[in-house]
Parts: sequence; C-alpha cells; structure tokens
Amino acid sequence: MAKSDPFAPKPADKFTFGLWTVGNPGADPFGGPTREKLEPAKIVELLGDVPGVHGVNFHDNDLIPIDATDAEANQIKKDFRKALKRTGLKVPMATTDLFRDPVFKDGAFTSNDAEIRAYAVQKVMRAMELGAEFGAKTYVFWGGREGAESDATKDPVVAIKRMREAIDFLCQYSIDRKFGYRFAFEAKPNEPRGHIYNAVTGSYLAFIQTLKHPEMCGVNPEMAHEHMAGLNFVHQVAAALEAGKLFHIDLNDQEFGRFDQDYRFGSISYKHSFFLVKLLVDYKYDGLKHFDSHAFRQSNYDDVKAFARGSMRTYKILEHKVKQFNKDKDIQKLLRQINRKSKAAEQLVSKYSKSNANALLEREFDRKKLAERPLPYEELDQRVFDLMMGV
Amino acid sequence: MAKSDPFAPKPADKFTFGLWTVGNPGADPFGGPTREKLEPAKIVELLGDVPGVHGVNFHDNDLIPIDATDAEANQIKKDFRKALKRTGLKVPMATTDLFRDPVFKDGAFTSNDAEIRAYAVQKVMRAMELGAEFGAKTYVFWGGREGAESDATKDPVVAIKRMREAIDFLCQYSIDRKFGYRFAFEAKPNEPRGHIYNAVTGSYLAFIQTLKHPEMCGVNPEMAHEHMAGLNFVHQVAAALEAGKLFHIDLNDQEFGRFDQDYRFGSISYKHSFFLVKLLVDYKYDGLKHFDSHAFRQSNYDDVKAFARGSMRTYKILEHKVKQFNKDKDIQKLLRQINRKSKAAEQLVSKYSKSNANALLEREFDRKKLAERPLPYEELDQRVFDLMMGV
Amino acid sequence: MAKSDPFAPKPADKFTFGLWTVGNPGADPFGGPTREKLEPAKIVELLGDVPGVHGVNFHDNDLIPIDATDAEANQIKKDFRKALKRTGLKVPMATTDLFRDPVFKDGAFTSNDAEIRAYAVQKVMRAMELGAEFGAKTYVFWGGREGAESDATKDPVVAIKRMREAIDFLCQYSIDRKFGYRFAFEAKPNEPRGHIYNAVTGSYLAFIQTLKHPEMCGVNPEMAHEHMAGLNFVHQVAAALEAGKLFHIDLNDQEFGRFDQDYRFGSISYKHSFFLVKLLVDYKYDGLKHFDSHAFRQSNYDDVKAFARGSMRTYKILEHKVKQFNKDKDIQKLLRQINRKSKAAEQLVSKYSKSNANALLEREFDRKKLAERPLPYEELDQRVFDLMMGV
Amino acid sequence: MAKSDPFAPKPADKFTFGLWTVGNPGADPFGGPTREKLEPAKIVELLGDVPGVHGVNFHDNDLIPIDATDAEANQIKKDFRKALKRTGLKVPMATTDLFRDPVFKDGAFTSNDAEIRAYAVQKVMRAMELGAEFGAKTYVFWGGREGAESDATKDPVVAIKRMREAIDFLCQYSIDRKFGYRFAFEAKPNEPRGHIYNAVTGSYLAFIQTLKHPEMCGVNPEMAHEHMAGLNFVHQVAAALEAGKLFHIDLNDQEFGRFDQDYRFGSISYKHSFFLVKLLVDYKYDGLKHFDSHAFRQSNYDDVKAFARGSMRTYKILEHKVKQFNKDKDIQKLLRQINRKSKAAEQLVSKYSKSNANALLEREFDRKKLAERPLPYEELDQRVFDLMMGV
Repeated sequence: MAKSDPFAPKPADKFTFGLWTVGNPGADPFGGPTREKLEPAKIVELLGDVPGVHGVNFHDNDLIPIDATDAEANQIKKDFRKALKRTGLKVPMATTDLFRDPVFKDGAFTSNDAEIRAYAVQKVMRAMELGAEFGAKTYVFWGGREGAESDATKDPVVAIKRMREAIDFLCQYSIDRKFGYRFAFEAKPNEPRGHIYNAVTGSYLAFIQTLKHPEMCGVNPEMAHEHMAGLNFVHQVAAALEAGKLFHIDLNDQEFGRFDQDYRFGSISYKHSFFLVKLLVDYKYDGLKHFDSHAFRQSNYDDVKAFARGSMRTYKILEHKVKQFNKDKDIQKLLRQINRKSKAAEQLVSKYSKSNANALLEREFDRKKLAERPLPYEELDQRVFDLMMGV
Repeated sequence: MAKSDPFAPKPADKFTFGLWTVGNPGADPFGGPTREKLEPAKIVELLGDVPGVHGVNFHDNDLIPIDATDAEANQIKKDFRKALKRTGLKVPMATTDLFRDPVFKDGAFTSNDAEIRAYAVQKVMRAMELGAEFGAKTYVFWGGREGAESDATKDPVVAIKRMREAIDFLCQYSIDRKFGYRFAFEAKPNEPRGHIYNAVTGSYLAFIQTLKHPEMCGVNPEMAHEHMAGLNFVHQVAAALEAGKLFHIDLNDQEFGRFDQDYRFGSISYKHSFFLVKLLVDYKYDGLKHFDSHAFRQSNYDDVKAFARGSMRTYKILEHKVKQFNKDKDIQKLLRQINRKSKAAEQLVSKYSKSNANALLEREFDRKKLAERPLPYEELDQRVFDLMMGV
Repeated sequence: MAKSDPFAPKPADKFTFGLWTVGNPGADPFGGPTREKLEPAKIVELLGDVPGVHGVNFHDNDLIPIDATDAEANQIKKDFRKALKRTGLKVPMATTDLFRDPVFKDGAFTSNDAEIRAYAVQKVMRAMELGAEFGAKTYVFWGGREGAESDATKDPVVAIKRMREAIDFLCQYSIDRKFGYRFAFEAKPNEPRGHIYNAVTGSYLAFIQTLKHPEMCGVNPEMAHEHMAGLNFVHQVAAALEAGKLFHIDLNDQEFGRFDQDYRFGSISYKHSFFLVKLLVDYKYDGLKHFDSHAFRQSNYDDVKAFARGSMRTYKILEHKVKQFNKDKDIQKLLRQINRKSKAAEQLVSKYSKSNANALLEREFDRKKLAERPLPYEELDQRVFDLMMGV
Repeated sequence: MAKSDPFAPKPADKFTFGLWTVGNPGADPFGGPTREKLEPAKIVELLGDVPGVHGVNFHDNDLIPIDATDAEANQIKKDFRKALKRTGLKVPMATTDLFRDPVFKDGAFTSNDAEIRAYAVQKVMRAMELGAEFGAKTYVFWGGREGAESDATKDPVVAIKRMREAIDFLCQYSIDRKFGYRFAFEAKPNEPRGHIYNAVTGSYLAFIQTLKHPEMCGVNPEMAHEHMAGLNFVHQVAAALEAGKLFHIDLNDQEFGRFDQDYRFGSISYKHSFFLVKLLVDYKYDGLKHFDSHAFRQSNYDDVKAFARGSMRTYKILEHKVKQFNKDKDIQKLLRQINRKSKAAEQLVSKYSKSNANALLEREFDRKKLAERPLPYEELDQRVFDLMMGV
C-alpha cells in the first residue's frame, strides 16, 4: 500500500527523529512517565518499523547515561550500532545534554561558576567525539539553561561573553580534530529558565557574526520555540535561509504564548506549517528535517509510531499542497497582479549613485494613485484556505 | 523645590520626548482623540515647561504634514525653530513616517509595488534632509508596515532583500551628503501588521552585519516592543550593548503579550525597569534616552506634563536604587559568593590550544560537589525587592 | 455557478455582518482609512451583492451619527430601510457605541463619574429603541471601555456593582417596553483598555447569575477576544452552550496573545475553527452567526466582498468537514474505543446515596491496568488533519 | 530582632505553605531534582524554623504515597502529627492528587473512561477523610488534567457534565459525613494539558452556580494561573470577592503568557501584587493566604527558608504600603476628585421605575463638558510608583 501512497516518505527526504523524541516516556511537570523507558537500540528498532525515516539523532546522555561505566558504554554503543545497521538509519546530528544534571542548574557555558563552565566545555568535547563516532556532521547547541529567573543573579553582558568564549573554543577544537562539524544554534525564549539568553533565532544569527569561525556556524530554528514568543516562524526561517545559515531545522508545533508543547508537526498551526513547507520547497532547502516533538502522554508505543508516521505524512501532504499552490492559475495570476514591477523605479533604487539619488529625488510619485492599486489579499488568502481544504 | 529634589533630571541626562508622544491626542482603534491636536511649536513649549528635558524628536510628518505647501512648511519650521530656541531643546533624532499614509498600507521598503518602494526611499531622503536641518545625528528606522497578515501575499526572503537594498542606498546617501547620521533600527513583532519582518532587536543585530555600511548602523530597542513578544528587554539591550550597537533606546512600558501599549516608563514592570537602568548605568551608556510613550487617554495636557515629569523621575529614582544596589554590602557579598572564580579552569577555556584542550579533557570534575555549591538566589532576589521598596 | 456550489450560504444559515465590519474603512492605530466611508444604505447594498447573507447589525452610531439632527436621522433611517427592503436583509441584532466618544474615555457603566454612568444608560435606552425599530431581538453589550490601565484609578469591586446596577435597570426597561430583547454580553480581556472587567466569557456567565433577570441574559462569545487571552474558544463556547446561554456568537479569527486582529473567520486557526463548527453543529446551535471581523487594510470594496463571501464559504466548508468527521468509519471507531463505558461504575457515581458511596469506597480499581488501556490520540488527531486536507 | 521587625508575620495572618511547595525538590521538564526529597515531618520542621507560619496544606499523596501500605501510612501520619504538634502548625486545607499517576493521563472526573472517573471520585472521598483527620476545613479542587490537547479526543460539553456529576456527588458526601468542608475550585488555562476546561476563575464562578450545593462551593484563584492567560489577577479576585466566593487564595507570581512558573509572591509583578494586597485589605479578606510557589531550582533548603520568609515579608511590606496609600493625603485627594458623585443622576439609575426611566430619558447631558472633566491618572499612577519605591 505504501507503494501507491503519494505521501509516503523516503530516506532522501531527510526526515529525522531523536532518541529523546520517539523514546520520550511521557513525563511532564505534573506527572511521571506513562511509557516504559526504551533502550537506544529499541528506539532505533521502533523507528525502523516506520517506513521512510532517514536518521536518528541524540544527546550524549540519550545514548550513554552520565554515570555509565566504560563497559556499559561500550555495550550500549555496540547494540546501538547493530540496530542502526539492521534498520539502515543514519546518525546525522548529535548534541549535548547540558541541562538535566543538577550541576547545570544555573547554566553551563554561562554558569557563574568557572569550574562548571569548564566542565560544560569538556562535556561537549567528549560528546562531539561520540557524535563523530556515529558519523554526525551537524552539531546542535541548545542552551536551555543559559539564562536567569532574576536578573540580579547574572550579568547578561558577561553571559554573552562567556558563551562566545566557549563556542570559539569548541569551533577550534572541531577543526583541530577534523570532525567536520557544522554547528547549529537553537534558540528558545524561556522554559526551563525564566529567561534564556539568545532568546530567538535572530539573536543567534547576530551572535554568530561575532564568533571566530562564523563560517562553520548556523542556526537550528525550532517552530515551537519561536511560537512560544508568538513570532512568525516562517519569517525567522526566511532570515536564516537568506543569510545562508539554515543548517538544520526542528519541525514540531505549538500554540503561541504557551509552555514548550513540542506537538506533532502540523498538528496545531496548519496554515503556518503550510507556508513553512512552501518556504523550504521554494528555496530548495535540502538539509535535515528533524521532528523535535513527542507523542501525547496518552499514547502507547503503537501510537508513537502513528505519531512518527503522521509527522512525515503531514510534511508530504503540505509539500503536495505547495506544488498545487505554485501551479494554481488563479493564485499565480493574483500574485502577478500584486507584484508590480517598474524597471525605471527599480533601477533608480537598486544601486546608489549620485545621479540615481538626484533622479529619485526629482521623480514625482502620485501617492494617492499608488494607494489605489488593488491588492485583493482577502481573495488570495481565501484561495489558500480552499486549496488547503482540498475543495 | 526642584533644586533640592534628588531625582530632578538635567539635560545632561539626555532624556528626550517626541512630537508624537507628548503631542499624542489620545486616539485609539476604538475611539477618537481626547486632546486637541497641538502645533509642533506648542508641543515644544509644553516640554519647555517640564524641567530637565534634553530634546524633542520627530517623524517628518509630525513636523510637516504630508500635504503641506512649501510656504506652510517654512512657517512651521520657523515657529518650531523659535520654540526650540526659547526652550533650549535639541532635536537629536529624526525618523520617517512610512506608515500613516494609505500608500504604505502594504509596506514601504518591502511593498510589492516597485514604485512604492522607490517613493519610500525618496521620502526618507527628504526626511533625512529635514532632520539634518535641525541638527539630528541619529536616524531611526521603524518598519512598522514591513510585514504581512497572510504569508500568501509576500515572500519573506524577498522582503529582506528589498529592505537591504533600501538601507544600503540610504547609508550611501547619508555618507554622500555628509549628514553624519548613525542609523538605528527599531523592531516590533506585530501591530499594525499581523507579522512584521525583523520582528525583534536580535533580528536587526543580525541584519546589520549584512549591510554595506554596518559601522554606521545600530539598533533602537524599545521596551514595549520586546515585551509584546514576552521577551526580557534587559537581555535584548545587553546583546546590543555588547555588540557596540546600542545607538538609541526607547523607554516605555507594557504588559507582556499585549497590543502596543506605550505606557509611561516604569509604570508596569518595576523590576525589569530597574534591571534595565542597572544595565545602562553599569555599562555607562551615555546615548539618548527617548521616552516613546504617551499619556493615558484620560489625561489632559496638565496630566501630560505629569506624565513627562514622571517618566524622567522614575528613571532617576531607579538610577538611585542602582547605586544603592551596587553599594549594598549584603547584596555585594552574595554576588561575590555566587560568582566563583577558578584561575585554573578559566585559563584552560579562555583560549584554545591543543594543550589546553588536552588538559581540559583530562581534568576531573566532581559534578555532584559542584552542584552542591550554594546559590542563594531567593535571598538575593528578595533583597532586590526590599531595596526597591525602600525598607 | 452558485447554484451548484455545495458551499453556497443561504439566509437560513443566519450569517450576519455589521455596518461596522463590511463598512470598516481600514484605519488602524498607525494609519488612517484606506477605504472611503460608506453610508449605511450603501453598506447594505454591498452586502446585498453577496448572496446568502441573512442580516446586518449595527451600533446606534453606525447608523445615526452621535451629532445627527432629527432630520438627518430620519433621512438615514429612511434610506437604510429602503436598502433593507431591496436586499431582503434583516436587522437581527443591535448594540450601543459606548466607546468612541471621549465622554466614555474612562468607561460608561463603570465610569468614576456618576453623570457619565447615567448618560451611558440613557444612551443604551435610546439605542434599544432604535434597534427595536428595525426588528432586532438580540441586544449585545460589549463593555470595551469598562476597565482600567492602572488599578489605582478604579475599585474593581465597585466597578462590578456599577455594571450590575446598569444592566438590572436596562433589563427592566426592556421588559417594560416589551422590546422582547435578549441581552448578550461580549467579553474582551484588553484593548482598548489595559485591562477590561469581565475579561472573558466565563466571567459573564458568572455575572449573569447575579442579575435580577438572568433568564433574559446570555453571552456573545467572540473567537478573537478569547484568543487574545490564549484561551481555547471552543471550550468557552461549550460552557455557554451547556449553560443554555449561547445567545449570539461572533465569528472571526486571530493569533493568540495579540492585539485585536478581527480577521476573517477561519483564516488563522483552521483547526480550532473546525472544532468550533463541530460544536455548533453537534449541539444544533441555530442562533445568529455574526462575522465580527473586517477585511485587510489593503482591500478595496471588491475585496471586501470577497472577504464576506469567504467568511461564509469557510463556515460551510467546515460544516461539510464536520459531517464527514461524524460519518468517518475509522474516526468513529476510534471514538468508540476511547469512550469506555461501565454501567456499574457509572451507576455508582451518577447519583449520590449512602449505599452508592459505600459501594464506591469498597470497589477495587486496578489503576495500573486502567492506565494501560490504549488511547490512540495521535492516530485520531492525524485523521483530523487528513480529513481537513481532503486527502 | 524579629520582635522589632515591622514586617514580621504572625500565625494570625493565616499564611500557609504546602508540603509540595517548600518540599519541592526542584525538578522541571528538562532536569531532575536538585534538592533531596524530604519526609512530610521534615517539611513541617523546616516550616517550623520560619517564624510566623500558620499552617501547612497537602495533597493526599504528598503525605501518603499512592502505593503505601497501611502500616507505612500510619507511621507517616504519626510522625507528621508529632511535627505539627511540635511546631504548632495547622492543616487548614487539603486537596487530591488527581494528576501524577498515569491513570489520570487523560483526566480524572472528565476522563473518557467511566471506571477512571469512578476511581477519581473514590480517591477524593478517601483524601477528604485524610484531610478531615488533620482538621482541614477547606478542600481544594485543581483539575489540572481535566482537558485536552486535541478537541477530537473529548467532547467539551460532556466534560462539563462529567465534572458537575462528580462534584455534586462529593458535596453530598461531605455533607453526609459532616466534614464541614468548603470546596474551593482552582482554575488554570493550560499546562500540563494543552487546554484545561474551566480555564480561568470566572469559569468556575459560573460553574458553581449550576451545582446542587453552590453555597458550599467557592474559588481558589491563583495569581500565576491567571497570569498565564495574561489576565489581571486583581480583577478576577475582585469578582470572586464581590460574589462572596473567595474561599481561599494562592499567592505566587509569574510573567504573563508563560509556562507555570510558580515564583515567590511579589517577585515579578510588584505593582499587581500591591493592588492585590490592597484589594484583600480593603475588603477585609480574612481567609487563608497560601503561597503556592516554590523556591528557584538553584536554592538549597537554607534558601528555601529564605524563600518562605520572603513570601510573607513581601506580603507584609505591601500591606504596609497599602496603609500608606489609604492615608496619603495627595492620593486621597486625587481619588476624591476622580470619583464624581451626583445624587440626582445616581438616584435615577440606582433603581428602575417608569418615572425614573422617563426622567432619565429626558435629562440633558452635555457630553463634551463631561468629557473635559480632568482625570489626572498619570499623576495618580506616578504617586503609586513613588509610594512603592519609598521615596
């Protein structure tokens, strides 16, 4: 049946999941786990049952518990490797858990304790090694504890400097060790900290330019995280794309202005999800598409598989809708009407010169007439609704 | 009495207001004006009645109506100049109204209509001239209409490119004309548009790095605007400061996650306002401090003066509290306890070298012990409350 | 073509618009009108061009300007009545403008000025007369100015008492005059006021029970308003329905946690809109469905018609999807699986008696087994997505 | 020293904490506990070290683990009772944990499984017994799992009916058993569920009126919960007070539009906290004041004590400021100016009669003059700031 399914995903789609996403046992701040914890190899097998997955990502401690002995670590890695082989899944991305252990309760790179900052850097170095061992080429940094509840406790300028110092060190380490990593920074405005530094993707796009190795650094925008701040995720991804910095993307969903919900991609914001896929398709993004979400706490592992299948299916359905949008004659006609060109005006502004400046200053514009040119945006937006609904 | 007032502002404090702030007639989406509209010169005089003001800023059309004849414009400028002279107020900042006229209903620099884009650039050129005429050295760009309600209507990647083209042009024009301007970009996440490009200050910090003249470009963060997205404003300003890009600041206040309220500085977020002033004091910000807010719609012009006095008074009171914080023995002792140094650890991480990397990898950290070091953050934060309350 | 359109609305659908919605000239806090102001009769004619509309509602001053002479008022009413006749439109609902005039800048029924409170009541009495003249049977109260920016200015307990006094008076007046009105209260959390009393629909459901004539009072929940507070609108409407208090409904849309956007129904929250229509269909709501929204500021009046058509079309499409949902075998099977009945357990709890209480206390529940019963919510929710997308 | 401390709390202040608040071990969704778990008796002793506490509240499973044997339960109760005796603390409130166990993953009273609903009622019956054993007279219901992530999974109308059935049963059980309980309902808009029924306090004020025993039911508003929806907490409490339904209050703090932060009372919203205390003082609320918050995750148990002390101290400081406000001559003068009385107008509106209605209809109001009466709200609000700052 999958054969004839027009929305069947393929590994070439580069859809990935994480050990911590499909393996999420369903705990939340007000309740314990509802699903048994699975060993990494079991999680890989679970994903192997879901056709079309490209790979599985991990935090160091998703794979190797922070307290594991060397022997335990080796056994886990052996089992994990076997499962990868059996299923054909890749490990394209790795990252570090700098948030679960109490040592990081006030941050890792930005901790007020110099030894904790050093320990955090060490932990990343080791985790980079682990990721490299499994072939990861993208290394994600999510600084979920790099923040404060009260600004009395930390100097936010110092925090940025501390963060930069750590990243500059780790860039050089990656180069030195020839890991071949590209770093991807993931922002989040709050939770678990009251306020997190570099709160949104834009902050990281700025921060990257101040690093010693900006060329190897980009961003990993996450839909749910920008929605927490009520921002239009499509616009944030567009800024990253336009800057050549979209190194990775976290697909999931969530209501605006809420706790970090990490719902299934496309399950809340149908329209924003559509325009996100449109952006990725139109600008030929061909990087990893990671579903950084987890199944409802009510789900058992059968339903977790439904969740994984649904994540990819939704993307493929929206991809199909994008193609329809781009071919729809009425929509395209409206877009041509709306996008009014003017060679004369464009030439004046496109490149500064004194003569262009003078010519522009002298040009007469009839602003009332310009204001009257029709912009049938309601009609256009309604066509999007119709197209989405398949009517 | 003002003499002995320890919180009396002085022009050297660089507090500024705008023609559109103290002159705001009190209209809102559900009601008309509640105060009569004042001529620019009258607004200057009103500010002249409030001791300690440094200057008054304007949008081109705050001073000269968009439809004014040359003769009218000249008269207005003459009256305005006289009022400035009488009151001793400066015009340190100017900006362009690219949002009121219907021609900009779908944006100015990012409009889908090439002629409107060209017209917007022309309008800024003329407005820069006007600002320069009155001595302004900071030029603010608030792209309040540069956005979309439905992403069907505009390509967000194209929008960024259009914005860059316009700014590159205008930078060169400013240089060419020797205006001596520094450009300051002001972000806002939404309202009046559903979604505005470069939604937060971080976005502009990134955007600036992609311009042809980044050195003359910085940001003008506005407290209320970042609060609309629920972001910690202090952190956003810290990022700008740390990057050397805090060219101007808009002080006001507002609840998180709301319409653009533009309330009196310090009137809602007492604590965030305190830490903002602390940041500006600690990092010796000595630029303009612009109150981009307006009095309640219930206020008459007497109360507008109370509003202006209160804006500055609140800042001075908080400044005083900052000095107390920085001298408070108990607070400083707690801060010393919290900020744990370690020469050994710091040296390893501060600069990458292979030997540092190796030494760091080999170093043993007792993460349980590190986690147990006390961080009395509740005690510290309560002391902030006590200090603020003056008890 | 409309004939064969399965989504064509009919007057029996009871879709209504307001003079202030389709007649909205497109002003916002940062820009003037973009459409010419239309006379009431013209607005009726515009709606007459859109097939399927049931009626048009008004605020007193939408129809008769606050400063109109009697002669002007009579002429306007005459023209309006003619237009209604020509188009066959009804006036099923009326309401009062208690917010535009500066006199109401600090509230109407809750103003701190006793004379303003009395004037507000008088204005409603007259507006009720006007509504009755055109046959309105639903009278809406939106207390948009009944609030405060600073709680120093008004006592919130006193405000509630003032509001009750006014409503009790007006209920009795309506009865006395045999207008036959049902009152419908419309909540909004903020904007234009910083905080509005009775902020959400739930607040009014409680308030109504404290009135002298609760039987004639219900609510008019508005989707955009509850979304401003990030609330699930479907749940708020469900509470009103369950209480027999859904007297009217305002359909529109908006992002969570934003200014009052009043977008076209279904244009943002596809999924919430679907479940809203499902609730109304499943519980056979047959009251008025008012589109309290306005076209984009970019639209001209042709596009305003597209907006009106789209509002109704979207509802009809969603209604169709609801029927599909209710007939979908797989979905219904999942719902049966999820809703587990137990006669024994239900009987114990459904009605209190000592013997039931004792039997319940003694009953043994295997909570681990109960927890393991499958709840395939991801699968179910994905089927909703598929059904919505028409695939 | 405490003797001379003007802000020292006393048991008569009725400040309470919960086993789950001061005993909170500091886990969050992204990290494990940072403090060792304390036995109930130890938590009581910790509170005993903090002078001025009135009592300690609990959920059934805070005291007795859900899996405890009878012998274990008896030992725990014995130890707990001893600790209460030693410290003199009361147990004025009890409640049920209907959220931690996986059996409640889709709700308790509103679960789709009839046996789980029955089990939930049974669990409350037993927990009421436990509370009564320790003298609790207030019984709180927080339905944190009574909600949905996707509205496909549950009918919101049915959910309300199920909730009512359970509460009606439990009211009768309480009466029957002569527990003497008053029930207090606590709302929360979201988290842990995506959407929670009866999302805000207003919803419960309405729901209560539909119960069989409304007289024994009231609300327990929580500051942080209403702030999650960006609502003005003072107004919600005012509505409860005015309705005679403020049976309990949860004091804490949090930023608007965020995850459930449960910060120390007064630590974020200085101004809202002040007006809350003002409301409670002005309307002589003398019920329990429960601090439903927890110390920062960085705190150790010494700092937890600082947190407990600070919670009460902040309240007492604000109480003192309220007295200052109520005695401040300038402020009171402004309030008298603002609150304009008019016997004539008040008499007309205060009670309906035909003659009053006619007289009111005939009365002439000069709305322009009324609009011009000064409302110096900026001046007043600035005085609040000054008073709060102690300058």
